[in-house]
Amino acid sequence: MANKLRVIPLGGLGEIGKNMMVFEYGNDAILVDAGLMFPENDMLGIDHIIPDWRYLTENRNRLKIHALLLTHAHEDHVGAIPYFVRDFSNVPIYGTPLTIGLVQGKLRTSGAKGHPTHVFEAGDILRFGPFVVESFHVTHSIPDCVGFAIDTPVGLVVHSGDYKFDHTPTDGWPTDFARIASYSQRGVLALFADSTNAERPGWTKSESVIDRAFDEVFHSAEGRIIVATFASLISRIQQVANAALYYGRKMAVAGYSMSQNIKIARRLKYLDVPDSLLINIDEIKRYPPEDIVIMATGSQGEPSAVLARLAYGNHRSLELIPGDTIVMSSHPIPGNEETVYRITNKLLQKGAHVIYDPKAEVHVSGHASQEEMKLMINMVRPKFMIPVHGELKHLHAHADIAYALGIPEENIAVVENGTILEFTEDTMTIGERVPGGYVFIDGTGIGDIGPAVLRDREALGRDGFVIITGVMDKKRRKFVAPPQIISRGFVYLANSGALLDSAAELAQQVGESVTNGNLNQQVEGAIAKMLYSETRRRPMVFAQIFEI
Amino acid sequence: MANKLRVIPLGGLGEIGKNMMVFEYGNDAILVDAGLMFPENDMLGIDHIIPDWRYLTENRNRLKIHALLLTHAHEDHVGAIPYFVRDFSNVPIYGTPLTIGLVQGKLRTSGAKGHPTHVFEAGDILRFGPFVVESFHVTHSIPDCVGFAIDTPVGLVVHSGDYKFDHTPTDGWPTDFARIASYSQRGVLALFADSTNAERPGWTKSESVIDRAFDEVFHSAEGRIIVATFASLISRIQQVANAALYYGRKMAVAGYSMSQNIKIARRLKYLDVPDSLLINIDEIKRYPPEDIVIMATGSQGEPSAVLARLAYGNHRSLELIPGDTIVMSSHPIPGNEETVYRITNKLLQKGAHVIYDPKAEVHVSGHASQEEMKLMINMVRPKFMIPVHGELKHLHAHADIAYALGIPEENIAVVENGTILEFTEDTMTIGERVPGGYVFIDGTGIGDIGPAVLRDREALGRDGFVIITGVMDKKRRKFVAPPQIISRGFVYLANSGALLDSAAELAQQVGESVTNGNLNQQVEGAIAKMLYSETRRRPMVFAQIFEI
Repeated sequence: MANKLRVIPLGGLGEIGKNMMVFEYGNDAILVDAGLMFPENDMLGIDHIIPDWRYLTENRNRLKIHALLLTHAHEDHVGAIPYFVRDFSNVPIYGTPLTIGLVQGKLRTSGAKGHPTHVFEAGDILRFGPFVVESFHVTHSIPDCVGFAIDTPVGLVVHSGDYKFDHTPTDGWPTDFARIASYSQRGVLALFADSTNAERPGWTKSESVIDRAFDEVFHSAEGRIIVATFASLISRIQQVANAALYYGRKMAVAGYSMSQNIKIARRLKYLDVPDSLLINIDEIKRYPPEDIVIMATGSQGEPSAVLARLAYGNHRSLELIPGDTIVMSSHPIPGNEETVYRITNKLLQKGAHVIYDPKAEVHVSGHASQEEMKLMINMVRPKFMIPVHGELKHLHAHADIAYALGIPEENIAVVENGTILEFTEDTMTIGERVPGGYVFIDGTGIGDIGPAVLRDREALGRDGFVIITGVMDKKRRKFVAPPQIISRGFVYLANSGALLDSAAELAQQVGESVTNGNLNQQVEGAIAKMLYSETRRRPMVFAQIFEI
Repeated sequence: MANKLRVIPLGGLGEIGKNMMVFEYGNDAILVDAGLMFPENDMLGIDHIIPDWRYLTENRNRLKIHALLLTHAHEDHVGAIPYFVRDFSNVPIYGTPLTIGLVQGKLRTSGAKGHPTHVFEAGDILRFGPFVVESFHVTHSIPDCVGFAIDTPVGLVVHSGDYKFDHTPTDGWPTDFARIASYSQRGVLALFADSTNAERPGWTKSESVIDRAFDEVFHSAEGRIIVATFASLISRIQQVANAALYYGRKMAVAGYSMSQNIKIARRLKYLDVPDSLLINIDEIKRYPPEDIVIMATGSQGEPSAVLARLAYGNHRSLELIPGDTIVMSSHPIPGNEETVYRITNKLLQKGAHVIYDPKAEVHVSGHASQEEMKLMINMVRPKFMIPVHGELKHLHAHADIAYALGIPEENIAVVENGTILEFTEDTMTIGERVPGGYVFIDGTGIGDIGPAVLRDREALGRDGFVIITGVMDKKRRKFVAPPQIISRGFVYLANSGALLDSAAELAQQVGESVTNGNLNQQVEGAIAKMLYSETRRRPMVFAQIFEI
């Protein structure tokens, strides 16, 4: 292992989200990001998913983990920190001022306020054992993002972070092209670069195109305007504030996470919003509708966030008024389409005007498209290229781009989480695999839910359950308390008395005729068979018959 | 009701799918389409959804239903027929030759072979009581599609069916523009038109652009080619057959529904595929990979269809070979994205090349985009405009288009299923509402599953259940058989012995200390509270304690 750089992706490779990478040389390591991922539609009951960092805990005696370095403060890059700090209370966290500001809020609410954090500015150089880490500013959809150029004993490796090349970002701070280009002069061993939009031709549009769309909305809206977006989309909040100032509307914020983020971003001067513009959400009734704009969370359809509550009419203090204009300032993340469209339809049904992307350009992606990826690769000119951040199809599409730019096929690695990549000064080898899968968070449980429980949940969600209980006289083989049925999720109980009655009768018959073998199992088998033949459904069937 | 035309949408308005409309004058009625809809991700365990035609069954004594007229043979227009014919065994079904051919297959497999069907050709005129129905040919993504111009005592109404204006369709049979335009000369009271793509600017591309993409695929693929698409996409099958002939590959078909459709379409001469081209799926091993193309079902990620089985390696006779080229010749329907992308990733992981839309133009939509919608409206020049086929957001977007073309706002009706529209010679009134919701099909159950069961399924899918049973001596208030716990979907049982043991102990304590009130309820309450405080999860908790 000595003389080799080992890079281990624990998240973000072969999936969207929970980004995390380990850079290891000898017994020294640094980490980049610790994000979470939102469950897919069939991961029933799961709150979210964090990386499986067993490799780190299992090697904690050998490895000195110098730092967790953060590229930016989106959930898919920092959301696992509350769990990470429980396992690694001595690993300091490094990030830019806004990133650390937002992460500190997270640490406070999770009871880890005292965890060591350090702030650096984009362009700063940090030393951790054999690693010299230089950060470089990139544009994305939250301010103060960086990528890292990590100098190691075998060469310089570059990690892009999430990026797009926005020449006119909302904060006026474009990507540090000069610094990125300078790495190629030093010679770059490997580039790890964001693949999210590798299927999209052309360039991703600048955040500034949204200003024009907002201008049109603010110009023509006759009632209140409600802008729904991600709580962390600080630049979008700035854009709305600018439009509100220009058109003389007051701005209120609905949603705890967004309010907190705005507070932090204003304090750190990443948001320029005068006090006079902001009003409390409870004050909006004092103003005519045409003087109000509300920033709200829930643009991904999250059922407990503001937008869903408005659509379904169950928000504590806010109610939709016909004539409201709702701006959906985000794109649905794959898997959320159905929920987002359903909310859109519900809002329309309640008489709101709803503005969303194909109707007006009220959102643009925060990730590089194909032409930007080409520019990144050609600026960095790496020997080896490893597409990161994306499902396998995105990684492959990014690899195709690298190949088209002249990087030899054998110098491009498309790998999934947990695959160790080993680098010497002139080689890259795909090594063994370590755990890199999902750790499910459900309530207070971390990783206790696995595929077996999810399979049960799926079966229960599909066809419900039927349970037969009763008490039988062991000697006489007669029920003293006849079989009772408990069932949910299988049939509509009010209409299915006859079916369940005949199940109870069958249970009694079978139960009293069993002479050897497992009584419960035989009852279960008979009932399951009967129910399937009657309904073509397969509920989970259990029997618990007491023999006394 | 006399002197008025009543139009009642029972499906397709405010949703995608299960299209169905009633046209009624006095006591005469005709129906257009009877489709099904696929369940959304949170409709757990539901197989599919059919229209709620209670209005028709409740009025069956009053109404003479002359005919069910079909626009085309896609599932969302004909899929409810097997259920429809059970309730309306005397209502004859009318369609074009291919449509009736495909529907007859459906009737046979559902045991209604003898149901009366009638074939008409596009352009034919049919009379049903006060209605004179003229069909007109439109292009879509299955051959032999029509719309209807229905002459009624109050005026002419036009129903577009699903359409796009494809000037170079695969079968060389473009939309009958002349006939559509002729209606405006007769004066059109109302237009009911497809809104599916009302958010898409421009024109939908012709099916023929796919030929170029296929040519590129067939030209460069070195192994087998597997094209996955809808079983009913007859024109796509023709395109693949053409490419196979040109490039000297044999074509095999995997998937029962597609094989059946091909058989019917060939017999009726809607598919021009020579015998010499086709081989049986079991014969493919006799040919080198580069001589084979396979047509397969499952492009929407359906778990039991061919593509998913290839991805997960559980197909009966077919196995993926590294070097296979998979063409995903369809777009994921909203809600299916996650599953489709997961299969794409799985196929890539197994070493296949996967071609899908943004990478190559291997699919185009079958529905009109905005410019086509404008052309339809301007050709027909209706007095009243009713957007149909789409979620509320699509209907609104289509209404915006109609308004932009000069149709007054009050002459455009955006309504949802079950809303009665009443027409006289010069008025349109939005009337009362009749049932227009979902009828869920689950196993053999039609409509027995409603919101209550779905809510239970959701709760079970999220957190599972816990059931406590036991036997207590009624007099002594002591358990003679101590509490037993059955649980699934809540915690991983192998690791949760202690938690469930303490639940059983608590149940015993509480049970034995209950002196009055409902024993089971009190145990349930105590256990639910304890489990929530330990896990922050809320399983369904039931107690069934026998007192003997």
